[in-house]
Amino acid sequence: MNEFDLIKAANKIFSVSREDVLLAAGEDDCAVVRIGGKNVVLTADVLHEKTDFPKGIRAEEIGHLSLAVNLSDLAAMGAKPLYFVHTITLSEKWVGNFGEIMKGMRKLADKFSVAVVGGDIDFGDELSIAGFAVGIADRFVTQSNAKVGDFVCLTAPLGKAQLSLEQLLDGAERDDIAYPESLFTPEPRIAEGIEIAKHANAMTDISDSLAVSLHLIAEKSGVGIEIKKELLPLDHLTPYVEKEKALELFLYAGGDYELVYTSKRCTHGFVIGKVVKGDGVRIDGKELEFRGYVHRFHEL
Amino acid sequence: MNEFDLIKAANKIFSVSREDVLLAAGEDDCAVVRIGGKNVVLTADVLHEKTDFPKGIRAEEIGHLSLAVNLSDLAAMGAKPLYFVHTITLSEKWVGNFGEIMKGMRKLADKFSVAVVGGDIDFGDELSIAGFAVGIADRFVTQSNAKVGDFVCLTAPLGKAQLSLEQLLDGAERDDIAYPESLFTPEPRIAEGIEIAKHANAMTDISDSLAVSLHLIAEKSGVGIEIKKELLPLDHLTPYVEKEKALELFLYAGGDYELVYTSKRCTHGFVIGKVVKGDGVRIDGKELEFRGYVHRFHEL
Repeated sequence: MNEFDLIKAANKIFSVSREDVLLAAGEDDCAVVRIGGKNVVLTADVLHEKTDFPKGIRAEEIGHLSLAVNLSDLAAMGAKPLYFVHTITLSEKWVGNFGEIMKGMRKLADKFSVAVVGGDIDFGDELSIAGFAVGIADRFVTQSNAKVGDFVCLTAPLGKAQLSLEQLLDGAERDDIAYPESLFTPEPRIAEGIEIAKHANAMTDISDSLAVSLHLIAEKSGVGIEIKKELLPLDHLTPYVEKEKALELFLYAGGDYELVYTSKRCTHGFVIGKVVKGDGVRIDGKELEFRGYVHRFHEL
Repeated sequence: MNEFDLIKAANKIFSVSREDVLLAAGEDDCAVVRIGGKNVVLTADVLHEKTDFPKGIRAEEIGHLSLAVNLSDLAAMGAKPLYFVHTITLSEKWVGNFGEIMKGMRKLADKFSVAVVGGDIDFGDELSIAGFAVGIADRFVTQSNAKVGDFVCLTAPLGKAQLSLEQLLDGAERDDIAYPESLFTPEPRIAEGIEIAKHANAMTDISDSLAVSLHLIAEKSGVGIEIKKELLPLDHLTPYVEKEKALELFLYAGGDYELVYTSKRCTHGFVIGKVVKGDGVRIDGKELEFRGYVHRFHEL
């Protein structure tokens, strides 16, 4: 069983029918519950040293990344982030860097007015950080409401994080890779998410890959998606890799944390395709594979 | 640096002054924030196979325990639990038991009307589960408001979990230990916590030890605490261990998840001492050591 099968199994076990639970367990990027008349958006993400932190990452960047991946899930719903709680498992190697990790988290938190209101500290063989973010949304956008006729829009070109990671794994120093910020300190698209949520029918963030995100939207919405190669800009990648590899990175790489959404209008970013009747995801008429980098260093 | 030093360092880094944050980072059992006119109580706890799960624990009990420790933190504030989100890191050994772990979680969740609304699944060398619980409280009780003249009250006798654990480590089968339920499936004192919160001045749950809990209340409230040996019932332990060891378990062992509180009246459980002017914690006039089992298998 892979992660997606396990999530399906968990969804079954935790199925819930309650008026105050608008969106539950694993159905989307976040859960949405009602508290005091507000739509409260909840999400959890865990990162591990071996699978999620690129070689050469600095302590402050670990703190940044741990918060960023959670905020990105909130952005994917169009939620405004408010609070963050985390649990950290410190290995011997990292215990001396605890303060820096926390400072990196605080710095990003301040940027988005997030209050880090709690944490639990534990010790283990491998550094890992589990984060829980809480936000609110007047209107929230799921993956399951794409409408036939919508444009498919993307907030920015993809593939920068994985390109940089591969350069690093090929032996490049971190000062010499193409997009260090995409790899070590990606920025969640909070402001964009809130604006897009005013009109989008479906939205998600791209943590695994564009292909995975599009398949999830198509499957959950009961629609087909058609994208076009000519609409995918590759200029940011082609100085470093061949065009074919650039396309591979754009479609199947993760870690950029941009937003993909469907709407009658693309207010942020650019059009890459459209929502059609039927099912499946096609690129220039050919089936787009369902694969991506579930964790940064492992293919699905 | 131990866990408590690290928490203090983190509190400094995350200090926050916002009207909507009533209680923040590490100051207490939970954080409390205001959403839609409600006191929303947030807590996070992470458990690891090696340090937190007793030998012989069953998959369903792992799910139970992971939720129980978080609910116990909510109980400690007097909050009613509403939602639970978790991240699970599965090791190869446990991946086949995923469904049972989740079912154990669901069973306890149903008991307290908690909706498990989300999760993240990852893979690693060691099983661990980070949990994040959300509750609400009309009146919440902290560790920092004990009043001189209060009684110190305890919801039930302590030491059952650690006694059972030590029997297990001494080679007993799990069917032969004294209190298997205290060890494998402790029950958070939710109903009690909500009732006690109507009148208590200070409260916390006993996850590490009674000694640690009393020291935290005394230090944070700026008071002294005096307890009496004769008020500590040991009858549940003395059939199995000497009286001296029984007292050690009562004072310094963790894992029972009972509540200790200070109030003008002990409505639940029994009196073990009183709150006095000054500082420190004494038992029959002698200093009570600040120590406990921060994790189930490691002394502080």
